[in-house]
Amino acid sequence: MSSPAALFTDRSGWAPDGPPRAVVRARTVADVQRTLAEASRTGTPVVTRGAGTGLAGGAVAGPEAIVLDVSGLDRILGIDPVDGIARVEPGVVTAELDRAAAEHGLMYAPDPGSVAICTVGGNIATNAGGLRGAKYGVTRDSVLALDVVLADGTLLRLGRDTVKGVVGLDLAGLVVGSEGTLGVVVGATLRLLPRPTRVTTAVAYFASVAAAAGAATALGAAGLRPAVLELVDGKTLAAIDELRGTGHAGRGAALLLVQADGFGAGEEIAAVAAVLGRTARSVETTEDAGTAAALSAARRDALPAIEAKGRALIEDIAVPRSRLADAVDGVHAIAAATGTDVFVFAHAGDGNLHPIILLGPGTAPGAIPPAARRAADDIFALALALGGTVSAEHGVGLLKRAWLERELGPDVLALQRRVKAVFDPAGILNPGKAI
Amino acid sequence: MSSPAALFTDRSGWAPDGPPRAVVRARTVADVQRTLAEASRTGTPVVTRGAGTGLAGGAVAGPEAIVLDVSGLDRILGIDPVDGIARVEPGVVTAELDRAAAEHGLMYAPDPGSVAICTVGGNIATNAGGLRGAKYGVTRDSVLALDVVLADGTLLRLGRDTVKGVVGLDLAGLVVGSEGTLGVVVGATLRLLPRPTRVTTAVAYFASVAAAAGAATALGAAGLRPAVLELVDGKTLAAIDELRGTGHAGRGAALLLVQADGFGAGEEIAAVAAVLGRTARSVETTEDAGTAAALSAARRDALPAIEAKGRALIEDIAVPRSRLADAVDGVHAIAAATGTDVFVFAHAGDGNLHPIILLGPGTAPGAIPPAARRAADDIFALALALGGTVSAEHGVGLLKRAWLERELGPDVLALQRRVKAVFDPAGILNPGKAI
Ligand SMILES: Cc1cc2nc3c(=O)[nH]c(=O)nc-3n(C[C@H](O)[C@H](O)[C@H](O)COP(=O)(O)OP(=O)(O)OC[C@H]3O[C@@H](n4cnc5c(N)ncnc54)[C@H](O)[C@@H]3O)c2cc1C
Ligand SMILES: Cc1cc2nc3c(=O)[nH]c(=O)nc-3n(C[C@H](O)[C@H](O)[C@H](O)COP(=O)(O)OP(=O)(O)OC[C@H]3O[C@@H](n4cnc5c(N)ncnc54)[C@H](O)[C@@H]3O)c2cc1C
Repeated sequence: MSSPAALFTDRSGWAPDGPPRAVVRARTVADVQRTLAEASRTGTPVVTRGAGTGLAGGAVAGPEAIVLDVSGLDRILGIDPVDGIARVEPGVVTAELDRAAAEHGLMYAPDPGSVAICTVGGNIATNAGGLRGAKYGVTRDSVLALDVVLADGTLLRLGRDTVKGVVGLDLAGLVVGSEGTLGVVVGATLRLLPRPTRVTTAVAYFASVAAAAGAATALGAAGLRPAVLELVDGKTLAAIDELRGTGHAGRGAALLLVQADGFGAGEEIAAVAAVLGRTARSVETTEDAGTAAALSAARRDALPAIEAKGRALIEDIAVPRSRLADAVDGVHAIAAATGTDVFVFAHAGDGNLHPIILLGPGTAPGAIPPAARRAADDIFALALALGGTVSAEHGVGLLKRAWLERELGPDVLALQRRVKAVFDPAGILNPGKAI
Repeated sequence: MSSPAALFTDRSGWAPDGPPRAVVRARTVADVQRTLAEASRTGTPVVTRGAGTGLAGGAVAGPEAIVLDVSGLDRILGIDPVDGIARVEPGVVTAELDRAAAEHGLMYAPDPGSVAICTVGGNIATNAGGLRGAKYGVTRDSVLALDVVLADGTLLRLGRDTVKGVVGLDLAGLVVGSEGTLGVVVGATLRLLPRPTRVTTAVAYFASVAAAAGAATALGAAGLRPAVLELVDGKTLAAIDELRGTGHAGRGAALLLVQADGFGAGEEIAAVAAVLGRTARSVETTEDAGTAAALSAARRDALPAIEAKGRALIEDIAVPRSRLADAVDGVHAIAAATGTDVFVFAHAGDGNLHPIILLGPGTAPGAIPPAARRAADDIFALALALGGTVSAEHGVGLLKRAWLERELGPDVLALQRRVKAVFDPAGILNPGKAI
């Protein structure tokens, strides 16, 4: 046991009041079982953590809690290329799994921006999304079975090894996205897909964010459903130019990055380019991996470029796809009204926006200036007003607890809490988080 | 209220002891709420039913139960082509929804064999699969939000209108596949996808079922993931020949039907044909819809052809894809050992087999001869021994209750029942079924 500072917070910028009661670095499933059984007996809160890259405060642990670090359970137990299945421990870094799958011509589809540093267990606990989500869905879509330790220390296997199965309630699916409140994931059977051998890319610049958002919607209306469909606004493009010396902002006030894969990827990207060409200032396509990497750098550089300017609140709303342009416009209006610096990029294919609120120089760690807090609240209200959600993929954690009841309503929230109590009667698993 | 015989059984062949206490034909959501609130108060079992096409006895109602028929709630409330979303009442017939979607160039992906006669609500309650499932998944993958009436009459909205969302536990996902044991689905927000404009088809005949199953596995190993991948065994081909006067059985002892769609469907089916050609007796491909319909008739005729021979038990196991050949061989061995007539067709892409056990002439309705029962039990045991499940898509209902604990284990089953009790403390919703 040890307790370095980095082990009791995450990437949300939320700072606990002091170090936790203890840090357990689990090396075996039995370590997890023992820790939980003991915690249930003593009524001690347990905060499970993977890599601590979460953006909602889910892995933040207060002074009364035990931190249960499962990142050391990091073995890939097996890959079956014929069944397209991987068996892993929860601490496996997501990119490592994808790399191992690639050796068999397969891919692990969920690819959050943090893929190189987050864990599969954390992805399961948050139902993480990623860039390929427009076509391949979220983590939920890749989970077949989970080994879960309940609060009392019982080890259960939920789900099954087959692609289909309807025996009993889908409890594995319920644990996905539960942010460590129902049990600790100590093993997973995951689905692997054929690795696309051909990927095509289009990048288009637009005169306004509304035009780019409109083009994203037009793709859907044209029956096009590419694997990647990302939007970057002009403010973010300027930040990238500052960081990298590139010239994006001069080319347009917003950018769309589109990728297609598989059979027909060439034909598909041509159809995409035709739709984008109707309203874009410029469109460029390529089938070459190197050129694609250069073209898509702007999307990957978005967050680092903004964070180079200082600490930021990373928001994560989703709206019905048709409301994407309204949402981006609304966010910009909120920035103007609150006098905050807000950057926007989006998984446009899913209507999932990341408004990034810069906190301004000299903001103390853990502190959120009132204007930024107001901007965040207005953005959440905007999401709900547009028929959307306050969190598409990062989770509720600590940060969005105040919005939970407003989004779900009191009856659904009460039902959720009764379900949690079935899994964790003593209420020790990440209390005060997520639900 | 009325109670014609057809309203208290389903297509499983299970016969209740007598007519139910009452049949409520709901016309409004308030009818459903009133019925459940009253039933909870009096402790009366409620069996919800859609079209009664279920194959597991889920909609079978005993003399003590109220039948709650929601098939009259059958309006499509709206289709939003830009968001790719449909709002429906539960009694909408699945094919009607797909037809309405087609008017907007969209499709509702789940297409069970019963698509023309079953309801969307029944599909949700059973998490129904279909032919396109190899590529488009099961009903779960198309459900965004559900309006659910709980046992006490409360109406809740679970889920959300956006494609992504992680606020709170995924209770909508939990209701999918719960076979009427957690609540009554009175409304659904469903995902629609672009309707593929191009579909290509390949049909191949093989010298043995093992060779066909091996070829299905080889497609996966070659990174091919077509939209449809169906297998029909020789016994079933002979039955189709008898019914239709076709000549399938002369061409091979098993058939694979493969369809690809979307961009690159031509290239993809050529790659499929190349893999099949390695071991098939013959392979034929087409891009023409009429020819495709003729080629795929064999798959669609499979069940009617077998049922033309008499009453049958329709089983529904799944195994990891790599065990498909073992499973088919195992089923044939069980048929030989038990002296039963067993036909097999399969959603091969998902490892999902339908062994159909003929009950023999003169079997009374509701009766299952001992040999058939033994064959069914041996088939379930085979599925579990191969790492699979006793039900891939039809559900547990009444028929597979005896296998529930064997598949899930006592701890998981106990947890499931505790979760059910949260939704339905009085235990009135489809008691004795599913879990
Ligand atoms: C640069 C950057 C980019 C990002 N991009 C994305 C993105 O594109 N999409 C996206 O969805 N997220 C993104 N994130 C957020 C974050 O990476 C994800 O939420 C990720 O899933 C967290 O994984 P982790 O291992 O770091 O989990 P942690 O932060 O350690 O934990 C997250 C939550 O999961 C729980 N948890 C962790 N492991 C387990 C387990 N084994 N059992 C039970 N509960 C557990 C914790 O209690 C906590 O509530 C990004 C973060 C950063 C810093
Ligand atoms: C020829 C034929 C082919 C078939 N092919 C397939 C196939 O390819 N794939 C497949 O998965 N199935 C298939 N089936 C089985 C069946 O059609 C499906 O299970 C279907 O989903 C049942 O729908 P239904 O409306 O008939 O439901 P019902 O039979 O009326 O009910 C099924 C279950 O759902 C519950 N239920 C129904 N409506 C609601 C509601 N609104 N709220 C809560 N619970 C409800 C019932 O209580 C019951 O437990 C086939 C059946 C036949 C006869």
